Amino acid sequence: MSEVFDVIVIGAGPAGENVLDRAVRGGLTAAIVEDRLAGGECSYWACIPSKALLRPVELAGEVARMPGMSLGPIDVDAVLARRDEAVSHYDDAGQVRWIEGVPATFVRGRGRLDGAKRVLVTEPDGSQRLLTARHAVVLATGSTAAISPAPGLREAAPWTSHEVTAVTSVPGRLVVIGGGVVACEMAQAMHGLGARQTTVLVRGDTLLPRMEPFAGELLAGAFAAAGIDLRTGTEAVRVERPEPGGKVTVHLPDGPPVEADEILVATGRRPATEGLGLESVGLPGGESVEVDDSLRATGVAEGWLYAVGDVNGRNLLTHMGKYQARACGDVIVARAKGAPDDLPALRATADGYGAPQVVFTDPQICAVGRTEEAARRDGFRVRAVEYDLASVSGAYLLGDGYQGRAKAVVDEDRRVLLGVTFAGQGTAELLHAATIAVTAEVPLERLWHAVPSFPTVSEIWLRLLETYGL
Amino acid sequence: MSEVFDVIVIGAGPAGENVLDRAVRGGLTAAIVEDRLAGGECSYWACIPSKALLRPVELAGEVARMPGMSLGPIDVDAVLARRDEAVSHYDDAGQVRWIEGVPATFVRGRGRLDGAKRVLVTEPDGSQRLLTARHAVVLATGSTAAISPAPGLREAAPWTSHEVTAVTSVPGRLVVIGGGVVACEMAQAMHGLGARQTTVLVRGDTLLPRMEPFAGELLAGAFAAAGIDLRTGTEAVRVERPEPGGKVTVHLPDGPPVEADEILVATGRRPATEGLGLESVGLPGGESVEVDDSLRATGVAEGWLYAVGDVNGRNLLTHMGKYQARACGDVIVARAKGAPDDLPALRATADGYGAPQVVFTDPQICAVGRTEEAARRDGFRVRAVEYDLASVSGAYLLGDGYQGRAKAVVDEDRRVLLGVTFAGQGTAELLHAATIAVTAEVPLERLWHAVPSFPTVSEIWLRLLETYGL
Repeated sequence: MSEVFDVIVIGAGPAGENVLDRAVRGGLTAAIVEDRLAGGECSYWACIPSKALLRPVELAGEVARMPGMSLGPIDVDAVLARRDEAVSHYDDAGQVRWIEGVPATFVRGRGRLDGAKRVLVTEPDGSQRLLTARHAVVLATGSTAAISPAPGLREAAPWTSHEVTAVTSVPGRLVVIGGGVVACEMAQAMHGLGARQTTVLVRGDTLLPRMEPFAGELLAGAFAAAGIDLRTGTEAVRVERPEPGGKVTVHLPDGPPVEADEILVATGRRPATEGLGLESVGLPGGESVEVDDSLRATGVAEGWLYAVGDVNGRNLLTHMGKYQARACGDVIVARAKGAPDDLPALRATADGYGAPQVVFTDPQICAVGRTEEAARRDGFRVRAVEYDLASVSGAYLLGDGYQGRAKAVVDEDRRVLLGVTFAGQGTAELLHAATIAVTAEVPLERLWHAVPSFPTVSEIWLRLLETYGL
Repeated sequence: MSEVFDVIVIGAGPAGENVLDRAVRGGLTAAIVEDRLAGGECSYWACIPSKALLRPVELAGEVARMPGMSLGPIDVDAVLARRDEAVSHYDDAGQVRWIEGVPATFVRGRGRLDGAKRVLVTEPDGSQRLLTARHAVVLATGSTAAISPAPGLREAAPWTSHEVTAVTSVPGRLVVIGGGVVACEMAQAMHGLGARQTTVLVRGDTLLPRMEPFAGELLAGAFAAAGIDLRTGTEAVRVERPEPGGKVTVHLPDGPPVEADEILVATGRRPATEGLGLESVGLPGGESVEVDDSLRATGVAEGWLYAVGDVNGRNLLTHMGKYQARACGDVIVARAKGAPDDLPALRATADGYGAPQVVFTDPQICAVGRTEEAARRDGFRVRAVEYDLASVSGAYLLGDGYQGRAKAVVDEDRRVLLGVTFAGQGTAELLHAATIAVTAEVPLERLWHAVPSFPTVSEIWLRLLETYGL
């Protein structure tokens, strides 16, 4: 026997929950399937706990740079206790209540596609439950950490973002493999919370390689100043961990191996499509699910399958997944009702501009849109301007030794911003101004009349426009 | 004998300096006259030193709200030393060098109008120097603190923003008269730096009366929590200070008088036009100089007189003065060259939207554009939405007990924002997003695609738009 809903969502992370919310708000019935915690990776093992760990470390840095102020040692247990509170003690009862209040049906279990519009759920007790969708099935299963194939690495049971954000005891010696966002944030968090030897191994020659080059350079400088041992142009070629949970030895291409108490792998994510039954609807397994701007899977006939968030590979960021989810929920409603389905709000067009992202390190690294290199590669006629954030009064006032930089990439033909990058303390909330300017394509001539308040860090906007020549 | 320049600026504050810079960049010769310190009120006795005093206090609040962190006592001498550094130890040699490098002529002395295009300068030694302008004279003399006429108040030699920001010893007991920005900021700074009894007397019934009502309410709550004695609906009716610099007694309309060691008056500003010779060119003295959007004085024939910054009364904010100055310098150049003088960049149109302002208290209070009340008064068809900032994940992560609120005022006819107010920690840099949205009149439908990064405080943008119904 099959239960029938207008919409079935597989995966109750932020993206899946937003599809559900919008679909039900539009008058449809919906069920959502989740085998782990409702609320998803972000709420328990990513954005939320990582920021709960990072903010005290960042705050300690801010105090250290302010003459006349001094901090006692950080009480790590209290920080971890607040992290536990932030993740609701890894209990999703509140999230389940929220889902039921939408109202929608929460199905605990592992869902997989079983042919057109059919979702087969394996419940925790092993029993099976078949759900059928009248209008749409939405995949929102997210992604999982990719583990590189270095011999011994997988056997060493390394930490991923999942385990490091759930840390209960900060390792004394930590090796981090990777130079992206998770690697940078967690290296700094663990080091700031007491790891006395933190070694970061980066295969390339820079941190945050998708950002403007100065971002990774500034962060590398901060790592050096904090005593984090950053090694670029290297990698783990072999890993040994004879005792589970015991000492780890990481062998490098040359030089002596690195010994540590724990190892964190942060070398990217892959779409969580394993066992999702993609083959049952004619899609290749193991890959991200390709979708159009209405989040509809391009490879499935009759257009009943959608994918939002990490699993579609467009932008692996919680806020972009939620953004896609809002459009997806709304477009499913429009199509179910036979209403116009091509309004601007029903397309995730912002994905194409280059998603905004804040790296919550100290200095914060914030970017939206295209880097200069990406803009040139995409064929735009580009002019870029840079400015030293330390020369902005509002930044100087935040403390001694401020280090930061900003860059704006201008489309010379349309006189709009293609991308903006800020690196420095106090820039995280400044990014949204750039996100509006880039996404809404506000002409430079109008930005000129948007006057930053003095003395905020935002005055960088004036400086960038002046440097451009306005 | 008269010295001749294309442009003569009276007043070398930020606004005057910006006129000078833009005019010279446009190919004109220029002189600037200042009888106090080049750099102006903002650099020495307002924005800069006040923020140097406030930031440590704010930071202490941030630490206090973060579990697991504890602060040692603030070393007030170190804070004052950094303030001294921030104000260049009240030495304007660097500013004078900057002016000379523009290049322009710096004239130390008190300037006043002496008929059309003539500026008479009284130099520090009492000698006089006559300057004549070929194209324009620009008034940029700023404003001075208004002292209410309560008997004994002026005789008590009260502090104004000038003295309190230059404080060398924090008074044990301080009475603050006023409830505007300076009063709120300095009450909190002095209290946080050690005043053990801070009493704020407000004639009206709220702090920050020009802002959305919740802003003043939140701040009043923060005052109460910090032990600042806020008294609304009262005022100083008589002040006694028998010994200069000694104990002050402030009599109220009813109840016992308040005794204090110092008194700060922050009840508004008046344009600095005294002795400026306005009458010599047919303008009324003692009032602000009315200008059009090109910053040209409307009451003077032949259009050679301009006024920028506080003295024109449009917006008493450093950044708006500088904004006007950029337009003013450029329009003077355009007119001198006979070039088109009506381009958008040559008009200070942003003044009309409602200037952005950040009050650097804890919580920060930030607003741009119109309040709901002002928008209705101005005849717009308005809908306003509010949201509790404490419900935003990025705010919760900043510390325990986050308090804040946001409000957006929508023009229902054009679907653009007329005003936005944020109150809460971490909102100062968030304001510029609103300033762009309001000033560039970005439609709500486009703001919807500007996705705030998770988990920043900026997610309030999403919540406001969702609350509106997008």
